[in-house]
Amino acid sequence: MLNHYIRETIQERNSMLCVGLDTDPVKIPPYLLKQDNPIYRFNRAIIDSTHDLVAAYKPNLAFYEALGLEGWAVLKQTLDYIPEGILKIGDAKRGDIGSTAIKYAKALFDLGFDVVTVNPYLGWDSIGPFVHDQEKGVFVLCLTSNPSAQDFQYRMVEGKPFYQRVAEKVLEWNSNENCGLVVGATHPEELLKIRETAQNLPFLIPGIGAQGGDLESTISGGTDGHGEMAIVNSSRGIIYASSGEDFADAARNEALKLKDAMNSLRLKKKEQSE
Amino acid sequence: MLNHYIRETIQERNSMLCVGLDTDPVKIPPYLLKQDNPIYRFNRAIIDSTHDLVAAYKPNLAFYEALGLEGWAVLKQTLDYIPEGILKIGDAKRGDIGSTAIKYAKALFDLGFDVVTVNPYLGWDSIGPFVHDQEKGVFVLCLTSNPSAQDFQYRMVEGKPFYQRVAEKVLEWNSNENCGLVVGATHPEELLKIRETAQNLPFLIPGIGAQGGDLESTISGGTDGHGEMAIVNSSRGIIYASSGEDFADAARNEALKLKDAMNSLRLKKKEQSE
Repeated sequence: MLNHYIRETIQERNSMLCVGLDTDPVKIPPYLLKQDNPIYRFNRAIIDSTHDLVAAYKPNLAFYEALGLEGWAVLKQTLDYIPEGILKIGDAKRGDIGSTAIKYAKALFDLGFDVVTVNPYLGWDSIGPFVHDQEKGVFVLCLTSNPSAQDFQYRMVEGKPFYQRVAEKVLEWNSNENCGLVVGATHPEELLKIRETAQNLPFLIPGIGAQGGDLESTISGGTDGHGEMAIVNSSRGIIYASSGEDFADAARNEALKLKDAMNSLRLKKKEQSE
Repeated sequence: MLNHYIRETIQERNSMLCVGLDTDPVKIPPYLLKQDNPIYRFNRAIIDSTHDLVAAYKPNLAFYEALGLEGWAVLKQTLDYIPEGILKIGDAKRGDIGSTAIKYAKALFDLGFDVVTVNPYLGWDSIGPFVHDQEKGVFVLCLTSNPSAQDFQYRMVEGKPFYQRVAEKVLEWNSNENCGLVVGATHPEELLKIRETAQNLPFLIPGIGAQGGDLESTISGGTDGHGEMAIVNSSRGIIYASSGEDFADAARNEALKLKDAMNSLRLKKKEQSE
């Protein structure tokens, strides 16, 4: 079951860190652009320098689609390069009707992802094809880290905020134990409330760093009762830590700092809970 | 402005028909698979045989992603082959935070789409990058054609169904007159209500044919007061009308029937309204 694998991965690797491979030709060190396949070179260097520190890598598909025709190939090369035992999260935010969801699930899992992000708006038949195989699964968007999350996600649905209704529904969808939630670190109080609703689900938590989420409240609110089951993503803060030739070392430094800071915080929570 | 262009396209081409290019290697005539680039060959034949009958073509991106590395190239070839003056709708259902939405918008519009489908769940900052250019735009998922639309889209949000809240919000987002709504033909009563809320927006209406939507209620409920501003999609019912070598002719017959039936119905509505 995917959720067991997620729990074990965090424990065995002693890390909750996910590095977001949102690789942008405009933001990588300019000297790389003079070499062939610069995006893959960049990703490979980031993976080489951080793989012992992470639980997961998370490429956002938009960045690869924006590369045009070669994007899918670069993404495939990158996934193939990630060492075994590290979660491969496809940040795709897909959501389509059943017959189409089958196609998306096939495309993304065939490419090599273990788990993908999906949008709940179309309901169960858009999610089902992603969770039939219990070794694969989804993180369902629950409360996103962006400012306009308030447009719909906070609206009251029959007495509770919409994001709580999503969390409740995902618990129903979790019969194969392979569903999790995406909850942004930019909403610490809500993170705590959602964790109360979904005590055992894995959470994928974006929004620390560039987006402003606070680490302490993220770990105390977002992990389960044992200080586990949360994967915290950082993209820009790690991969663009330096724009020079030392970018991979700089990424390692940031990843190490973040991993250690998170582990201290979750150890604190673990000790308090015991 | 995109919405003017949509209105003109329907009028000038005297068609509300959109053919969905959801091309699946498992469903195309088997003899094509022995030739090179079968998906593009199939699409080209469908376009050749139907282009004078349609207002739009709508490839669903899932079907191209499922082709793996060559998918994006086949999609690009297909878009390049569509004659000028026909709307190119990218059925992508994307929705991501602002910095990522910029990437998706670039990827899809650069590929050649005029308009793409987007998911409202992340709110305005996920939509903004798609509507800055007033010649391009979006169809926002409002009420989808699939059975589990009921999981969230019908939930009551402060006294109104969620899909109505989406329609209201999209009216706010339409300052560049380049936003429309996706409303499934499988919900005729709701289609009528949403049209009352959003009187002037273009509607993209999937769900007739294989999904069971009724044509008469779709046209009477889904068009604006003048019997205009609706684009009705059919995918499987047209492109897979025959699995033999006559597939392109069979597609033309189905497209012609559907186009004519829709035009009779909207003429009736037009006459009643005048």
